[in-house]
Amino acid sequence: MPRVNGVGVQVEDTKICVVMVGLPARGKSFIAQKAQRYLQWLSIPAKTFNVGNYRRNDAPHPTADFFDTSNPEGEKKRRAAAKAAVADMLAWFRQGGVIGILDATNSTKERRRWVLDTCNQEGIEVLFVESKCDDEALIMANIRDVKTTSPDYKGQDPETAAQDFRNRIRMYEKVYKSVDEDGDENDLTYLKIMDVGKQVIINRISDYLQSRVVYYLMNLHIRPRSVWLSRHGESMYNLDGKIGGDAGLSPRGEQYARKLPDLVRQSVGDDRPLTVWTSTLKRTIATARFLPGDYNQLQWKALDELDAGVCDGLTYQQIKDQHPEDFAARDEDKYNYRYRGGESYRDVVIRLEPIIMELERSEDILIITHQAVLRCVYAYFMKKDQAQSPWMNVPLHTLIKLTPRAYGTDEVRYPANIPAVSTWRGKGSTAKHEDPLPEAM
Amino acid sequence: MPRVNGVGVQVEDTKICVVMVGLPARGKSFIAQKAQRYLQWLSIPAKTFNVGNYRRNDAPHPTADFFDTSNPEGEKKRRAAAKAAVADMLAWFRQGGVIGILDATNSTKERRRWVLDTCNQEGIEVLFVESKCDDEALIMANIRDVKTTSPDYKGQDPETAAQDFRNRIRMYEKVYKSVDEDGDENDLTYLKIMDVGKQVIINRISDYLQSRVVYYLMNLHIRPRSVWLSRHGESMYNLDGKIGGDAGLSPRGEQYARKLPDLVRQSVGDDRPLTVWTSTLKRTIATARFLPGDYNQLQWKALDELDAGVCDGLTYQQIKDQHPEDFAARDEDKYNYRYRGGESYRDVVIRLEPIIMELERSEDILIITHQAVLRCVYAYFMKKDQAQSPWMNVPLHTLIKLTPRAYGTDEVRYPANIPAVSTWRGKGSTAKHEDPLPEAM
Repeated sequence: MPRVNGVGVQVEDTKICVVMVGLPARGKSFIAQKAQRYLQWLSIPAKTFNVGNYRRNDAPHPTADFFDTSNPEGEKKRRAAAKAAVADMLAWFRQGGVIGILDATNSTKERRRWVLDTCNQEGIEVLFVESKCDDEALIMANIRDVKTTSPDYKGQDPETAAQDFRNRIRMYEKVYKSVDEDGDENDLTYLKIMDVGKQVIINRISDYLQSRVVYYLMNLHIRPRSVWLSRHGESMYNLDGKIGGDAGLSPRGEQYARKLPDLVRQSVGDDRPLTVWTSTLKRTIATARFLPGDYNQLQWKALDELDAGVCDGLTYQQIKDQHPEDFAARDEDKYNYRYRGGESYRDVVIRLEPIIMELERSEDILIITHQAVLRCVYAYFMKKDQAQSPWMNVPLHTLIKLTPRAYGTDEVRYPANIPAVSTWRGKGSTAKHEDPLPEAM
Repeated sequence: MPRVNGVGVQVEDTKICVVMVGLPARGKSFIAQKAQRYLQWLSIPAKTFNVGNYRRNDAPHPTADFFDTSNPEGEKKRRAAAKAAVADMLAWFRQGGVIGILDATNSTKERRRWVLDTCNQEGIEVLFVESKCDDEALIMANIRDVKTTSPDYKGQDPETAAQDFRNRIRMYEKVYKSVDEDGDENDLTYLKIMDVGKQVIINRISDYLQSRVVYYLMNLHIRPRSVWLSRHGESMYNLDGKIGGDAGLSPRGEQYARKLPDLVRQSVGDDRPLTVWTSTLKRTIATARFLPGDYNQLQWKALDELDAGVCDGLTYQQIKDQHPEDFAARDEDKYNYRYRGGESYRDVVIRLEPIIMELERSEDILIITHQAVLRCVYAYFMKKDQAQSPWMNVPLHTLIKLTPRAYGTDEVRYPANIPAVSTWRGKGSTAKHEDPLPEAM
């Protein structure tokens, strides 16, 4: 049987090392962590190997001189750190890793050639991803970020740290060669991102998985924005403890729909029109219908609730009675279990992939959707474990605001304070409505 | 209400002029027609305006001298042709066109700036797509193609024609400037494709629709290949005239599954292993199970049959009896009608879009899928009208071979000569099985 991965595509024995390239403060680690999160969300084994972390074992708080290539001591330690990171990465590939990300400057042709040869010897493809940025404001923002967050400067005076970091960048600039800038690296597979996507160069992308990574990275932007998530208002099916279907809102669900514009205004403000995405099902469209008229609204089939197939319209008690084996199998592995004639959470993630891509490209969006779909979208932004996400509690009548930052996502919740049943369900339970356990929060 | 287009995304008032750039014989028209076909398949109004066709009104069989920029007469006529093509394109945009493709060499900065300014004045975005190719073998293949197919050389000696065409290219080379080669066109939005995708440069892509076009064009290749299509073998549901479900094969369907390896061998040969894609439903997987073991097999949820929602498992007579309004509404507009709780053909096209993208990237693939899905895939390759494609007859127990060529797709059908019911249905009919009308072929 073929191996099938999260993107619904055969990966066979493809292994890719994504090699970051660029001067310090060019957003390499930002790109690396986004790529890793995206791939893991798609169930593709991905891991980042940060050479700086290895170097810190030997040199925890180096000054800029350490990065001077004419300093043999520093050079030796930095080379040793790169070797150690690559060795660990190769060991990880041998244990089933699919996409390893080498997060370092890799700023010389020699270093890049060495990584390429070392990987190729083990049958690993190499994709160089260079972030090239001459926009002073962006670089300064990154420097400010580094001086306050990098372990290299822990406990140091911020101004001294910033000055030292600028000196460090200067050391790298002395030897830095942009990928293929001399035209003698055109055999390499690479993606060059200039000024955060203003221009992009793609060279010799040869297979599907590479093209997926490249397309995702092309679509990233760093303009500030937020994503708001809400389930539909309480539905008539929710009251009965039935799953699936296309029911209308309950009277309390209706109340939530009427209150949602206030909740949104409270969180967003008046002057920032949102784009609203709903599913094609009645309960999400009804929930969105009192939002301001200048909000564009768009219905996506891909945001429809997980299809419960033969169990559509049943209560959990009925599922247990009529399909006992399915009931047990689903609790056993809720992420992978596919309802007969329906979907698994894994299937939902695959169909949500274009939604995630579009979210990455977009600015402010409000998504009104369903429990399972919201769990998947939330898991993407909050980096939740896929095995756990299907058990997560996402309460009705609550607006969630997510704001992506450089190294994670901030969350704020706005409860509407309109009562609703709980639709959360613990493992093995057939209760119509039960209180979520603390670990599901 | 928002306007929603075929990719499930709001287009609002986006209008894009795709301006081809490149010397003659660089595959510009190939790219233009692929883009147009893809966009039309997604129900995005798209049209190509070929400047050569306008020029031929004035100069049907010009020799190379005509294209010499120092020839004022030729220059004047060529400029008039460009103006006429752009004027028609602008008129078409005003009538609701969304993506117009200007197919010409547009080889000078002045010409490009003129197109940009003219479009921008009407609120139309401009995306330059340059095909740059220095691969002599590819250029020669294109020249051979042009001399035998271009109306410019109709009835002329092929060798004289080829020589004249090479001279014409030389005329263009004298004035040709690659987009942004001097660095003073970096305000333009452009995609530069070098040697058919070996390297790609993307500059200032700013919105979603542009990025979709760019991603599609990035994935095109011109290596020869074929796509084989087959429906599953006759199923137990087919015998009963029921739609949807997840039935197994009938005894005759089983026979087809056993014969399929022979049919495939007859068409493909022994030495070319295929990759086989099926849906996740039993009848397609069962149909694929006797294919050679060295064929990779992959199941795609996106290849599952059109979801008939509340009508799943019913016969057409039952649908008419139980859901008379739906029955009538579907016959009224079969492409857009969405079964309650299920899908429309338009929905299927949206979920097939990643499949098409992957097909464009791939080489030889055999797809075993379902009637409605096969109709959609077939419509893409054969450029069928979307309103007609849901009424097309796709017989059971027949292997279809499609071979994309520069200007169209060749088709061969291999009937297995194993009897099967007809699942084709005419407008208004509730017959269990009926013979397709000639116009459905």
